Amino acid sequence: MEAPETTIPHARPAPARPDAIVVGGGLIGLAVAWRAAQRGLHVALVDPEPGSGASHAAAGMLAPATEAHYGEERLLRLNLASARRYPDFVAELEGVSGTPAGYTARGTLAVAFDSGDRAVLADLAAFHQRLGLDSEPLSGRECRSLEPLLSPDVQSGLHVRGDHQIDNRMLVAALLTALTREHVTVHRERVAELLVEHDVAIGVRLADGRTLHADRVVLAAGCQSTSIPGLPPGALPPIRPVKGQILRLSVPASAVPFLGRAVRGVVRGRQVYLVPREHGELVVGATVEEQGFDTQVTAGGVYELLRAAHGLVPDIGELPLTEVRAGLRPGSPDNAPLLGPTALPGLVAATGHFRNGVLLTPITADAIAECLVSGQMPEDAQGFEPQRFGNEPRRFSKKAALA
Amino acid sequence: MEAPETTIPHARPAPARPDAIVVGGGLIGLAVAWRAAQRGLHVALVDPEPGSGASHAAAGMLAPATEAHYGEERLLRLNLASARRYPDFVAELEGVSGTPAGYTARGTLAVAFDSGDRAVLADLAAFHQRLGLDSEPLSGRECRSLEPLLSPDVQSGLHVRGDHQIDNRMLVAALLTALTREHVTVHRERVAELLVEHDVAIGVRLADGRTLHADRVVLAAGCQSTSIPGLPPGALPPIRPVKGQILRLSVPASAVPFLGRAVRGVVRGRQVYLVPREHGELVVGATVEEQGFDTQVTAGGVYELLRAAHGLVPDIGELPLTEVRAGLRPGSPDNAPLLGPTALPGLVAATGHFRNGVLLTPITADAIAECLVSGQMPEDAQGFEPQRFGNEPRRFSKKAALA
Repeated sequence: MEAPETTIPHARPAPARPDAIVVGGGLIGLAVAWRAAQRGLHVALVDPEPGSGASHAAAGMLAPATEAHYGEERLLRLNLASARRYPDFVAELEGVSGTPAGYTARGTLAVAFDSGDRAVLADLAAFHQRLGLDSEPLSGRECRSLEPLLSPDVQSGLHVRGDHQIDNRMLVAALLTALTREHVTVHRERVAELLVEHDVAIGVRLADGRTLHADRVVLAAGCQSTSIPGLPPGALPPIRPVKGQILRLSVPASAVPFLGRAVRGVVRGRQVYLVPREHGELVVGATVEEQGFDTQVTAGGVYELLRAAHGLVPDIGELPLTEVRAGLRPGSPDNAPLLGPTALPGLVAATGHFRNGVLLTPITADAIAECLVSGQMPEDAQGFEPQRFGNEPRRFSKKAALA
Repeated sequence: MEAPETTIPHARPAPARPDAIVVGGGLIGLAVAWRAAQRGLHVALVDPEPGSGASHAAAGMLAPATEAHYGEERLLRLNLASARRYPDFVAELEGVSGTPAGYTARGTLAVAFDSGDRAVLADLAAFHQRLGLDSEPLSGRECRSLEPLLSPDVQSGLHVRGDHQIDNRMLVAALLTALTREHVTVHRERVAELLVEHDVAIGVRLADGRTLHADRVVLAAGCQSTSIPGLPPGALPPIRPVKGQILRLSVPASAVPFLGRAVRGVVRGRQVYLVPREHGELVVGATVEEQGFDTQVTAGGVYELLRAAHGLVPDIGELPLTEVRAGLRPGSPDNAPLLGPTALPGLVAATGHFRNGVLLTPITADAIAECLVSGQMPEDAQGFEPQRFGNEPRRFSKKAALA
């Protein structure tokens, strides 16, 4: 393997003008930058600490079917399309980066505890059947035969073989390596301001004072996407942070595999999922809290997660608790992503992915790269226009948007 | 205030021969070294990281009355005697160190949830009355009037005004400063071996190869006290680690005082206590687990603590969870401390304090200092001889004890 080339930005002199600047180095921004660079664009990415936000906190479930909801069929189609791309996306990424991305196609088991849960699962099974999704209803005994550590209180389940998992932290690392190979310049710096001239986005000013200019700016800053100074009010609908507390447990080598697949359920009204990793980690998530920009772990959040996880799999009590963390999901007004050109010329959105950021990474990257190259969003990613809420940018002077 | 003198040990040449070497820099070792130095002894203390073990993990309850048990009246007398010394001990320490030690005389409220708990509390109240200890039985309503955040499920309580609290971490810091003032040399190094010659303890060899010789070696190494190489088998009864998992929550300034005093109770069979600090910390402890030298925090340990604490004070759910930790208490065969000369001449024990290490710090320090000066244990600390179990040292060659 040849050594990866490093592209270290030089100090003050402005770097060569990129074709596109990606603001935000979570999974979405990293993958967009990678795909755009593969398409021949000169790309710069700006993030003070790439992959440290929601992409670091997430559990990495790729679960379009078990997370399907009535009335969200358009989002479901997008989720399914992205899930289908995952194997090739990962294979290509691992090939060019030489770094494993931690993808496992081990399926998901959703389980029910009481008659209410059973009815919810039966509805989901019927929904899957109508849509032609592969899922198999199981009895409690069949659930425990798949997963012997499941609580004896589990009454029924739904085995969804097509809902997979990825280690989101390994995926971040692989994408960062791939960016190096594609000569994407990663500026580990905060964006101080979006630069707008004559009502066109023309670049960004970094916190260290440097400015970067480009034909296109891609906004992929997750829950901070609409907090960036200089963004004209109304250019994008508001993105809000939705807090998720999440735990990581460690399965001793002697007890691997603790679980054979992702397990999820509702326990006393609380949704919880347990996602096993090949290397012994067990991720337990996640709360969904509207708390603003608050990433504090609370006693109550950890308690609810442990209580629900303990209800599903009592033996988790023996496992070391190695990490407690809170991340912020980017929620849009309808919790579906904002993909494509915004009301501000030059500014392209790739944000608002809410609970589906990891899952939607491949299709978002492909679609935004296409948009950057051709100006057009591909058909399978249409319907998520940032302007679908009727937001309109107000005319503004360059400094007016600085609060 | 004049600047404290620093006493940095010089490199290889052996330092001036001390009168006593204290092995272990937890609260017991630090306080013994301080009191011995105050009595005019030249003292060296050895610990790779003073105050980082059980003294760091502990909650700092000074609760002889609420922790009193039938059949342990001798230990209770020692605990009460040490509790009485605390105000003067702290005042003197704060005076010489110029450092607050975080002592608060705010009392303790023990509460009961069901008829079983009520009976236990009533027994404890009767025990207190017989011994002349101040404690006041309260109704559930009276408990909530003292502590408005208590669960409505609390049925009765016992208010013990004489059971106080100290911030054990602040106490460590104050003692370290006091040692500097008393010119105690603190060797931040591991003890590699206890040196024994002609069946007499003569010093220690440090992990960096240096040797220290002294007339007396004080063993104050907590749960590691009987793991030190070179210790003759039988010189001390075995000390075992007893794991305690403990949480720290943070009370926002707007919610202080969250609790007015320490609150403890039994919730679904689990003992739990909540200890508020002046600076907003709320300590929630602790599990009691016989797990060997294992300091891993487990999902089950944290879950049980949060469940019990949530049962006592439901509003803890809102508080940030700032620390999860496990420490190891030093348990002796009867869980009472080992105080005074051991079967090995030259070796003095100050260990095995189990759940009472913080509480017993003042009386242990005074008694061991007296023992080092006069060779005699004072009367109020008698009855805790390390040889009370009939242990006898076997004759051994210097290297024989190295496993």
